[in-house]
Amino acid sequence: MIIFDRVREIALVNSAGNILSWDQETYLPSGSADYRSGQLSYLATHAHKLATSDDFLRALADAEQTDDGSDPVRTANLREIRRESDRSVKIPTDLVTRESTAQSAGHHAWIAARKASDFSIFAPHLENLFGFAAKKADLWGFVDEPYDALLEGFERGTSTTTIAGLFDTLRKDLAPLSAQAITRSAPSELPPGPYPVSIQQSFNAVVAAEIGFDFQTGRIDTTAHPFCTTLGPRDVRLTTRYMTSDFTSSLFGVMHEAGHGMYEQGLPASDYGLPSGSAVSLGIHESQSRLWENQVGRSPEFWGKFYPIAQGHFHQLKDFPFEKFLHHIHRAEYSPIRVEADEATYDLHIVLRFRIERMLLNREITVAQVPSTWNDLFHESFGFIPPDDARGCLQDIHWSMGGIGYFPTYTLGNINAAQLFKSAIAIPEISAATAKADYAPLLAWLRENIHCHGGVLDPTALMKQATEKSPSTEAYIRHLKSRYVKSY
Amino acid sequence: MIIFDRVREIALVNSAGNILSWDQETYLPSGSADYRSGQLSYLATHAHKLATSDDFLRALADAEQTDDGSDPVRTANLREIRRESDRSVKIPTDLVTRESTAQSAGHHAWIAARKASDFSIFAPHLENLFGFAAKKADLWGFVDEPYDALLEGFERGTSTTTIAGLFDTLRKDLAPLSAQAITRSAPSELPPGPYPVSIQQSFNAVVAAEIGFDFQTGRIDTTAHPFCTTLGPRDVRLTTRYMTSDFTSSLFGVMHEAGHGMYEQGLPASDYGLPSGSAVSLGIHESQSRLWENQVGRSPEFWGKFYPIAQGHFHQLKDFPFEKFLHHIHRAEYSPIRVEADEATYDLHIVLRFRIERMLLNREITVAQVPSTWNDLFHESFGFIPPDDARGCLQDIHWSMGGIGYFPTYTLGNINAAQLFKSAIAIPEISAATAKADYAPLLAWLRENIHCHGGVLDPTALMKQATEKSPSTEAYIRHLKSRYVKSY
Repeated sequence: MIIFDRVREIALVNSAGNILSWDQETYLPSGSADYRSGQLSYLATHAHKLATSDDFLRALADAEQTDDGSDPVRTANLREIRRESDRSVKIPTDLVTRESTAQSAGHHAWIAARKASDFSIFAPHLENLFGFAAKKADLWGFVDEPYDALLEGFERGTSTTTIAGLFDTLRKDLAPLSAQAITRSAPSELPPGPYPVSIQQSFNAVVAAEIGFDFQTGRIDTTAHPFCTTLGPRDVRLTTRYMTSDFTSSLFGVMHEAGHGMYEQGLPASDYGLPSGSAVSLGIHESQSRLWENQVGRSPEFWGKFYPIAQGHFHQLKDFPFEKFLHHIHRAEYSPIRVEADEATYDLHIVLRFRIERMLLNREITVAQVPSTWNDLFHESFGFIPPDDARGCLQDIHWSMGGIGYFPTYTLGNINAAQLFKSAIAIPEISAATAKADYAPLLAWLRENIHCHGGVLDPTALMKQATEKSPSTEAYIRHLKSRYVKSY
Repeated sequence: MIIFDRVREIALVNSAGNILSWDQETYLPSGSADYRSGQLSYLATHAHKLATSDDFLRALADAEQTDDGSDPVRTANLREIRRESDRSVKIPTDLVTRESTAQSAGHHAWIAARKASDFSIFAPHLENLFGFAAKKADLWGFVDEPYDALLEGFERGTSTTTIAGLFDTLRKDLAPLSAQAITRSAPSELPPGPYPVSIQQSFNAVVAAEIGFDFQTGRIDTTAHPFCTTLGPRDVRLTTRYMTSDFTSSLFGVMHEAGHGMYEQGLPASDYGLPSGSAVSLGIHESQSRLWENQVGRSPEFWGKFYPIAQGHFHQLKDFPFEKFLHHIHRAEYSPIRVEADEATYDLHIVLRFRIERMLLNREITVAQVPSTWNDLFHESFGFIPPDDARGCLQDIHWSMGGIGYFPTYTLGNINAAQLFKSAIAIPEISAATAKADYAPLLAWLRENIHCHGGVLDPTALMKQATEKSPSTEAYIRHLKSRYVKSY
């Protein structure tokens, strides 16, 4: 079918862009950044031109007219290509180019602003980037509020109201839960480092391979911020970063990104680029990373097997008791920094960002009010004010890259992860295996219930099919309670 | 000028392809190769489409008509864009795509053939690849023989007859010279390794930075075969490979590739993609790599400064005499392998390949006759027959990548390097500085006489301008005699 070839072509161009982005974060020399922005912008523009060309639209219309519905995957692919196409054609190509340029500039300004903890450096760029977001929301259209239109790009088929409802429930439970978790937390420092990077790398590779990440079609590199990206149907790149004082930092980074990576590796490779060969949404993507990082990676069962292996790698751990190690990875505290937050407090950071993004788009606050609003909302949830904007409203990369409407998918991921894990271990064979830290049956269940479906179903429908209910905070709160406040 | 924007666009697409190729050689997971071929082929095809579009040709014609000759660089750029364009439009886009696919298949077959030392695995691909070369030569057109048309793509403005003449002179001198060099060679093994890779990397980085390679806009990675590639106007990537038994192997690789890299770093960055911002030819490119690798890197003056530094890095060298080290890096022997050949015998390998390529294209031999012809010619020059085809006609990557007509530029590089170095050190300040292993004045001379001119002049004219004579074997033979057979 011609339209599928066209969609695959666009995916190929985007995958080339992913290679350039990956290199930009991993190996690009410090003095080479400018031209790379131009290369990325060119490929993004080219992909958008292809996706909005008359040829493309004609091929899509032809395919829709001749589709007899006999192949549900084909029909779903056409439906999703249409959904995406209807969004793409509403955005003029020059807006894509200008936004890409603004993102490059915004990204550089954000780095400088965060370094100097000076919001004024970033403010005009943030203004500009929220301007692009608002403009795109207007062009896409929405029923209730502009945020809906942005959210749709990351988590199709949901709404700001649904998210707000979930988050309100969550916040009510999290407020006391996190406070109790912190009170009960028995902070336990690891024995002093250094935990050498090369040994961390060996241990991380052992763990990643054991949980099922395929190194024949993937690899792990080092970046300032961990991520996972897909450069082709059999090419998944993870990154992590290293603290020589605590090997678990890079390890949980790897387990998180490997969760993303195993989802990508589990998608039907022959459908690469088509909706049926692509991840359905960020909220489902994040469910995979959180499942492996937290549901698995912070469980006592996991460490029952892997702590002795860690002790074999790091001589410091030789006489460090298992119980104290568990305390270390289950410590809870209020941190100003999202990426350093523990499970018990993480979502408070997300809810805060969601509220601010929504207020900005609804013009309830201006960009100039972001720092004070941030600090007010932060104080409301955490009981203190971040020491500076670098550790406040300037801490995250997302807005600088135009990722507005992205944050809620992190918490959706946590919610989905708990719900999926609960359904999986309800199956006796999976529960028996995970109790012994054998994760092959769990991965097989995820492959069958999530990965292999690509984007054929909407995220909510996929969750319903896999877990017999829509995403709800229930399993997640139960998980947090059982791990962090046992007698809650 | 619109045409210059178009040319820059094509350069951008090609630079994106270079990023993909670089990643393919450095970090691509083993199971990910297939899709990468498709990505590369797509970008190559896209660039060719741009270069042969009606828009492009119209913009070029417009610019030519309105050029008043007041800016000689602009006029030269238009002349070279025209030259390239006239070649591009003669090649149908589908031929570019098919050749790119054939090269990917050929490359894989070559790897398998070399591994098994079985020419029959590679033969049909070689047939195919020489078929593409012959087809392109026919489409481009030539006066004397098809090889001229291929050569023009690597070394514009020269001819097969000119090369053959230079090579005949060289071969007459090299036959006795190499024989005597080998007789007089005082083989001296380095003290036993291991020379740890990480220490080699530190030492190589010191040397590369000292001779002038800019790590702000470049880096060094590890590959099976060393190369240099340019990913943007300020992004030059070198690679090398490591032998733990001999640190000089990776070092000379780095010095060679850094020579290429410093040329690229010395091109006018603001003209990136235009002829005036691009290397003029492979023969000039190779002059830069050979100059730094051999004229500089194998000189006693260089090691007068760097041997003590090497001794500081590698404890094995502590009591190893300077004289014996020089013998080690000046040893000469007949090896079947080109990339392992020393200065005194290297060009014999090139002349052999040039003769075979020419015979194939003139249909004086068939592809099936390549192994026997190779062995006959090899015996004629080296006095023995390679032990197998893996170390004979299957040893080089070039044909498998469609690089037919490329080999002669290696020897042109050697000839040009010696001629340039001779002219540079005829200047007292440069000679005094190089005697102390201070290479800043030499690099400045190369920047001024070679790098900054990009492709404005033809290679021969550039050599004439820099050295006051056309490329001749004289300085090169004199150099080899003085280094390898002092009393010759």
